[in-house]
Amino acid sequence: MTGLSPMRFTHLTFDAVDKHALAQFWSDLLEWDVDTVRGEVVVHSSGDESNIVLVFMNVPEEKRGKNRCHPDIETDNLELAVQRAERLGAVTLASHQEDSNWVVLQDPEGNEFCLIEYA
Amino acid sequence: MTGLSPMRFTHLTFDAVDKHALAQFWSDLLEWDVDTVRGEVVVHSSGDESNIVLVFMNVPEEKRGKNRCHPDIETDNLELAVQRAERLGAVTLASHQEDSNWVVLQDPEGNEFCLIEYA
Repeated sequence: MTGLSPMRFTHLTFDAVDKHALAQFWSDLLEWDVDTVRGEVVVHSSGDESNIVLVFMNVPEEKRGKNRCHPDIETDNLELAVQRAERLGAVTLASHQEDSNWVVLQDPEGNEFCLIEYA
Repeated sequence: MTGLSPMRFTHLTFDAVDKHALAQFWSDLLEWDVDTVRGEVVVHSSGDESNIVLVFMNVPEEKRGKNRCHPDIETDNLELAVQRAERLGAVTLASHQEDSNWVVLQDPEGNEFCLIEYA
């Protein structure tokens, strides 16, 4: 790949019915900041600039079927994390107890994500 | 949120029909390393440990419909980046010329992603 400029995976963009409400959920969950950049609603870590940025844009259609890619979020206390996510509007789909403990949830617009506590 | 342990967005997990082939595509595209961690196929940046890690897992079903979230990848040379992605097996869906130049593509399993060159 000599001579090619690098590719930088910098943003994860969510289609939304209500981009402001969905951004607020992710902001509250991750304790990241909501901002507007180039006219787009973004959620980003205030402490770690190297972190990925979430972008939210309204689309006319609603979610149909399971997303083929989803965020995984690590926590040191799975039980508290699930409680907090549900309080913010997430719905728990399934709990797993394997080599790690993880719970599958959906955000308020049905986007799947996992909360994981490594042993 | 006092007293709650922080949530860390660390992984983006892709459902796949062929997790090894799909991981190889993303590895080649981003020039990241393919590895096996806790039995899972992962693709991660070798240079920047703070970067998000991509995880690939086989699922029985094929992709149906548009993903509600997708990676955005920045490049300094959009034309070369699109050529490279297509050579690796991506398909271009749409090109946009607005305040930034961006192209919507699908990876070999149909997952949408964008290549973006900011002015």
